Order: sequence, then C-alpha cells, then structure tokens
Amino acid sequence: MKEANEMSQAEMLYAGIQLTRPLLRNITSRLEADLEGTGIGVGERAVLEVLLAVGQATAPEITHILEVKRQFTGRLLKDLVERGLLQALPNPKHRTSSIFTLSDESRSLIECIRSTELSRLGEFCQRFSPEEIRAFYEVQRAINAEFSPAEAAISPVS
Amino acid sequence: MKEANEMSQAEMLYAGIQLTRPLLRNITSRLEADLEGTGIGVGERAVLEVLLAVGQATAPEITHILEVKRQFTGRLLKDLVERGLLQALPNPKHRTSSIFTLSDESRSLIECIRSTELSRLGEFCQRFSPEEIRAFYEVQRAINAEFSPAEAAISPVS
Repeated sequence: MKEANEMSQAEMLYAGIQLTRPLLRNITSRLEADLEGTGIGVGERAVLEVLLAVGQATAPEITHILEVKRQFTGRLLKDLVERGLLQALPNPKHRTSSIFTLSDESRSLIECIRSTELSRLGEFCQRFSPEEIRAFYEVQRAINAEFSPAEAAISPVS
Repeated sequence: MKEANEMSQAEMLYAGIQLTRPLLRNITSRLEADLEGTGIGVGERAVLEVLLAVGQATAPEITHILEVKRQFTGRLLKDLVERGLLQALPNPKHRTSSIFTLSDESRSLIECIRSTELSRLGEFCQRFSPEEIRAFYEVQRAINAEFSPAEAAISPVS
C-alpha cells in the first residue's frame, strides 16, 4: 500500500472510501459493547435516538429516518412499548396507527448514552483542527450524495 | 436535523460517522451497477483488485487483505480460476496450496475498471481542496483505528 504522501488526490479519496466497510463493522461492534448492561440492542438504540431527536414519530416516519425495512421498525417498536420504554399515543390523523414518544426511563437512558458518546467524540476531535473535522463531514456527505441511486439516475450512464 | 454551522465539532463528527451505513449501501449498489456487462461481481472485483495491487498472493493472504471469511475467498478463487481469470501457480512453500496471479484478460479488465473509477474520483476531488481530501482520509483512518476492537482492548473499559 502506498504511503499518504505518494498518493494522488483520487487515490487518497479512494483509500478513505475503502475504509467504509471495516469501519461499519467496527462501529457496530463498539456500539454493541457499549450497550452491554443497558438492556437495549443496537436497533433499539437507533429508535430511541430518533425519538430523542424528533420528539415524536409514527412507525413509517421512524422507518424512513432510519432507512430500514418496515418490518424491522415494527418489531422493535412493539417490543419497546411492551417493556415500557416507549409510549404509543393515538394518532389523530390515522385511527389505526400510533405516535411514539420516549418514556421517562428511555429518555434518561438514551440521553446518558448519547452524552457519553459525544464526550468521547469531543475528545477524539482534539486530535484534528475544526477545519479538518468539517472537511471530513463535508466530503463524507458529498461522497454519499455522489454514490446515491438518485444521483446515478440523474448523471449520464455510459 | 441541525445545520452544519449550528453543530459542535463532536456533533459534526457524529453526523459524518452516521453516514457510514447508507454510504456502504450506496457504494455497493454503484459498484454492482458499474460492473454490469463485465461478467464479474463485486466480490470477484475485490479479489482482482487485491492481485493488481500486490501482484500475487495465496488464498489466506487475500482473505486477510479483504478482511472476509475464508470460505468467501475460497469460492471466488475457485470460480475465477475455472473461468481463466486467475492463474493458480504451485506454492514453493506449501505443496498443497497455490499462489494466484491475474491472467492477461483479468489484468486488462481490472485495470480498465480501476482507471474509470479513479478518473471519476479525480473529478470529484476538484470540488474540494487537497487539504480537505487529506483531512477526510486522515479522519476516516483515525476513526477506524479508534473503533477497532484492538484499540478497544487497549483503552480502559468503564
């Protein structure tokens, strides 16, 4: 493998993108390890995080935000409600569906998890300048947009 | 969702990291779409890419570089050899194992695929400064190291 100072811009970008697969695996393992003892799994954590961010949401809204399969969200929501970690309120717009919100218990739990994570990430950020962190974020966003199927539909296909 | 200029460093880093999952899905779809008509799949492409980079390798070496399961590599290699896309040379160190190299056909194929990709990534890079591309690469590498299980084993576990 070439050293960073021998790589062209495109090669460096490619090498960064290639880390996506191992990174996702490493992130998932770390999330699982960090959740040990909390009684919730990675998928449940994701649902709680969405509700912490948006306040309340229906099952289709949560499914859309998480970009997962409908069945996946349905199962998690049912389980979280049964364990008292979510409240299911009637949806005034749709008689048969519910609006989900955090319970006091799950709010404390996800706030605690998020604040631990953010403080760790804050420490990590110290190794880089604000410009570097912003560049990471902006390039990551642009790559994701570039590779998204919607973008592919617009750009000419050879 | 907060705008970039309202986010703390840690929040921005987190938002970038959160794109890892959709990005991997988008990359895989794009790779599949780009390989249409070449007769090779995403896994096979990865094996050819390794051999283009390292020249020759045994099955365990390819497995290690790709960070995949042994069975996965074994199946791909067998299939590629049968189709004449790889040459299996006897391994002087181990009587029962082989050393794999590209055939002329697969070398042309993977060189063509890689050069198309790199030229596209080169165009993408024009949207950012060399410092930004380098920052993306360095932050991505550091995050991957930070989240890797080996790192977790070293750092104190609370």
